[in-house]
Amino acid sequence: MDVLPQELRELIESGPLAHLSTVSPDGSPQVTVIWVGLDGDQLVSGHLSRNQKLRNIERDPRVVLSLEAPRDPSVFLNEHAVLRAHAAIEPSDEAWDLLNRLTKVYMRPAQEFPAPRTPGYIIRYTVERIGGVGPWTRQS
Amino acid sequence: MDVLPQELRELIESGPLAHLSTVSPDGSPQVTVIWVGLDGDQLVSGHLSRNQKLRNIERDPRVVLSLEAPRDPSVFLNEHAVLRAHAAIEPSDEAWDLLNRLTKVYMRPAQEFPAPRTPGYIIRYTVERIGGVGPWTRQS
Repeated sequence: MDVLPQELRELIESGPLAHLSTVSPDGSPQVTVIWVGLDGDQLVSGHLSRNQKLRNIERDPRVVLSLEAPRDPSVFLNEHAVLRAHAAIEPSDEAWDLLNRLTKVYMRPAQEFPAPRTPGYIIRYTVERIGGVGPWTRQS
Repeated sequence: MDVLPQELRELIESGPLAHLSTVSPDGSPQVTVIWVGLDGDQLVSGHLSRNQKLRNIERDPRVVLSLEAPRDPSVFLNEHAVLRAHAAIEPSDEAWDLLNRLTKVYMRPAQEFPAPRTPGYIIRYTVERIGGVGPWTRQS
């Protein structure tokens, strides 16, 4: 998918938690809740250690990121986005900087990322299919 | 897991959206966002059609349900629960009644489930491991 719908970009930039689903070596689903941001038309996340989700992605880059819009009890099923994506991991000296940028979105503008600056990994997510409920699924 | 921690029970009963992760026949993750409730120490969800997630569970009952606690920008990573569970599907005349009960939690107390009453399916989730961030992971 070359261009993300504007409403989806706004949702992502508003700082929703992202539920990252990968598949473990035994074939069972694995989920962690992470921070995400945008870099052009890709989503990005920062990681300071090579944990289970990174090892899963190295083996199989097919992932899902699911994000909730703010809750609205007047609608039947709350708006949310389910993004099937291809994930690519790159070792990066700027993982901490990405995390620090996201800290200001997910926590407070004046907050610094509360861990020492070390090299890490950036995951880039290329969205292949947009599902869920919301204006992002009503675009062609 | 025989008994769910009380804090987790309270989170589930407060009406958080549940991100249900299963695995599709091609081995890729599949996610849908659903309503869940409690029945004893199992989670339950109601479904009126036998869609992809049900077919995935019939093939492999290992699932993850991930749920967010209310957002709190003062904490580092917002509280959330990641529940690895065994899912079991049963055809049920009471799927609609479960959905109608959950409508009152997820929408409004006076709201009826906005679809005709028909037979469907109930999925029962037996929690096998509790992860995430929150008081539910600090219990032994």
